[in-house]
Amino acid sequence: MPTSPRPLSGFPEWLPAQRIVEQQVVDTLRRTFELHGFSSVETRSVEPLETMQRKGEIDKEVYVVRRLHAEGNEDLDPAKTLALHFDMTVPFSRYVLENAGKLEFPFRRYQIQKAWRGERPQEGRYREFLQADIDVIDRDTLPAHVDIELPLVIADAVSTLPLPPLKMSVNNRKLAEGFYRGVGVQDTLGVLQRIDKLDKIGPALVRKLLVEEMSLSDKQADLCLSLAEIRTTDLSFVDRVRALGVSGELLETGLQELAAVVAAGIEYAPGFLIADLKIARGLDYYTGTVYETVMEGHEELGSVCSGGRYDSLATDGKTTYPGNGLSIGVSRILARLLGRELLTATRSVPTCVLVALPSEDDRPAGRRIAAALRGRGIAVEISPTAAKFGKQIRYAERRGIPYVWFPGRDGGADQVKDIRSGDQVDATAADWAPPAEDLRPRIVRP
Amino acid sequence: MPTSPRPLSGFPEWLPAQRIVEQQVVDTLRRTFELHGFSSVETRSVEPLETMQRKGEIDKEVYVVRRLHAEGNEDLDPAKTLALHFDMTVPFSRYVLENAGKLEFPFRRYQIQKAWRGERPQEGRYREFLQADIDVIDRDTLPAHVDIELPLVIADAVSTLPLPPLKMSVNNRKLAEGFYRGVGVQDTLGVLQRIDKLDKIGPALVRKLLVEEMSLSDKQADLCLSLAEIRTTDLSFVDRVRALGVSGELLETGLQELAAVVAAGIEYAPGFLIADLKIARGLDYYTGTVYETVMEGHEELGSVCSGGRYDSLATDGKTTYPGNGLSIGVSRILARLLGRELLTATRSVPTCVLVALPSEDDRPAGRRIAAALRGRGIAVEISPTAAKFGKQIRYAERRGIPYVWFPGRDGGADQVKDIRSGDQVDATAADWAPPAEDLRPRIVRP
Repeated sequence: MPTSPRPLSGFPEWLPAQRIVEQQVVDTLRRTFELHGFSSVETRSVEPLETMQRKGEIDKEVYVVRRLHAEGNEDLDPAKTLALHFDMTVPFSRYVLENAGKLEFPFRRYQIQKAWRGERPQEGRYREFLQADIDVIDRDTLPAHVDIELPLVIADAVSTLPLPPLKMSVNNRKLAEGFYRGVGVQDTLGVLQRIDKLDKIGPALVRKLLVEEMSLSDKQADLCLSLAEIRTTDLSFVDRVRALGVSGELLETGLQELAAVVAAGIEYAPGFLIADLKIARGLDYYTGTVYETVMEGHEELGSVCSGGRYDSLATDGKTTYPGNGLSIGVSRILARLLGRELLTATRSVPTCVLVALPSEDDRPAGRRIAAALRGRGIAVEISPTAAKFGKQIRYAERRGIPYVWFPGRDGGADQVKDIRSGDQVDATAADWAPPAEDLRPRIVRP
Repeated sequence: MPTSPRPLSGFPEWLPAQRIVEQQVVDTLRRTFELHGFSSVETRSVEPLETMQRKGEIDKEVYVVRRLHAEGNEDLDPAKTLALHFDMTVPFSRYVLENAGKLEFPFRRYQIQKAWRGERPQEGRYREFLQADIDVIDRDTLPAHVDIELPLVIADAVSTLPLPPLKMSVNNRKLAEGFYRGVGVQDTLGVLQRIDKLDKIGPALVRKLLVEEMSLSDKQADLCLSLAEIRTTDLSFVDRVRALGVSGELLETGLQELAAVVAAGIEYAPGFLIADLKIARGLDYYTGTVYETVMEGHEELGSVCSGGRYDSLATDGKTTYPGNGLSIGVSRILARLLGRELLTATRSVPTCVLVALPSEDDRPAGRRIAAALRGRGIAVEISPTAAKFGKQIRYAERRGIPYVWFPGRDGGADQVKDIRSGDQVDATAADWAPPAEDLRPRIVRP
């Protein structure tokens, strides 16, 4: 390589201290998901292109993968063309169908993996990004309490992370579809997709689209917009919908399902859930509860945790596997918080102790000290050179390593120095331990 | 999806219990690497094709990535064509050059990621596979003790894993190259690459290649083969090389470097390291110590942990960053051991306790019990239905969940049942805990 390479736009990478933050965030998510009984699944990175195209909508943004010296028509057959997955829901549905005979249902899984989209990169949108998903999938029917449980798992996970507060908006497709039918609309999905543009283009333009593109009457359009305006932190949205004077069985089911989710949020995660009746979610596989989440103070990033119920995404023709899932945009959250230095780590290495070397001949003794400390869970490096102690201490300082260990010479005791305070005490590798807060790097908000 | 999808050859995926084994293996590697002061790095999955092609040799096996609707010449320019990385050494070298001003040297990093190669799939060779790498990279020069340290870190990591014993073979490129020069060979890399085929085609055919393709005399070929036959677990290889009557400065340096590595192996990881003078490693960027590792009883899998010193892979023209690294083939090891059911997990879910529900009305009470147990680190699921208790117990049994919790009714105490033994005792969620060995699933050898 003749000159320094440059970053690729849309493919973020972290420096070591930033990566420590990412690891601890992912560790916390994983720990919470496992405490709630979710099993880890990793799917391969590629799916047949036709599997993904059948899910529609984003085929423009897919990355196709082929061998550099592919032979013959190997990658012209759409059943054989492979593409990098753009989310984890489609691969997970495929995994469930492929392994249905070997899985126990209901199946609770989490999946923390990279995904890829060939979109124009911008803040919050990357070509390679990390997602953390939880889904519950069942055979034939999926109980309604899953719609309540999933946002509570997310609330539990983020409550122990040093993030700005997250607020999750909830809606229900049945409520919206039932309402639209109640006002006499046929193409309910078409209306939903235009309502979904409210945040981007505002109510006046959405109203214009509803009237001109969807042929709604002024009254119908006004009613649909009135529904979308309803947003409450309590259960009062139910009365506000009823006050619009529209009724129907599907609408009633949606209202009850949404009320159950919001009521549980009030009880178990106060301030986290909001009934927000304009939330639509673009993807057409959602069939009931849908979720979107903003990070307070960073609303313009868009949703950082989205999902919903999909009752008919996975089916082999005989059996259907309804599911519900939520996906946290780990890269979207961390790129913002790391990029603006709102989060960092107390040091750039896992190392807690640097063993200093009086001379290169002391390296074997240093190895024994290091092994004794590591055996008790303390991360240790041995100085790479037996330079002057001042230089070895600077090696630790530059990395944020808090302690330097000086092996005793001529029968003298070992000593350990806290290089932040300068305190230096006698110590033995068999029993010295750092304070708990120094053992591992910690996430801090500078 | 009208019918069940089928697996893609070369893209292994695990069932939940297998994935638990993989997670625990990866966790152990990570913990050991961090105890030795290695920082985590993740690089993006793609590199410019020209970066990878410059490293030569495997361009046939690379997966190229392009947007499905790429515009114009976007992916005809080799500087803009992207490909999935085939290892972590090339991306890491690029990362070091790109971030040289922000990293502290020597830089110790580990990297546990997927890599991709378009090879014909067979056991031990996959198109998508997980690797766990450690490297130390420095500016200008890298001390020799790194060549000793890296295999000891691997020995430490695998010593706590339930794997068949690993045996690492070590050689030194300077030793081989110095010896070949000493016998009068010019194209030392050419000889090395043919010696590398010894295990595949045997000494008679390698001798033929050396004589016919490399124009070595019979005497030269015999000497090169005699060197390759030397394999010792102690330092006697030094005298055996000297007995061949060849000498030279580079040979002497190589002998001393290899002796230092093997001596440290004898002291710190007895039985792990073997001096094996036929080890060559195909890649031409290695410049000194090289390593290969077999898993006992599974030698035909090939090397499960390989690497070596590369003194000039990473350079920006002004500064060179010499490194040494080892890469564990996690997929190669686990596909064998999981595929033959030589390893499994004690259960298929993280869940330790299932809270049973006398009726659906008890779900809120179940949530409070679950929250109390989770708060103390115990993984809990709440029964998905308030079916008959027998059915709820079978839900736990099928997943290997060891405990079922029965909420007390009408003021009675809660009870917890070990469904393996049938023992059932009074318990309170605020202080009950399972025995340590039941808290999380464990890896077992059936």
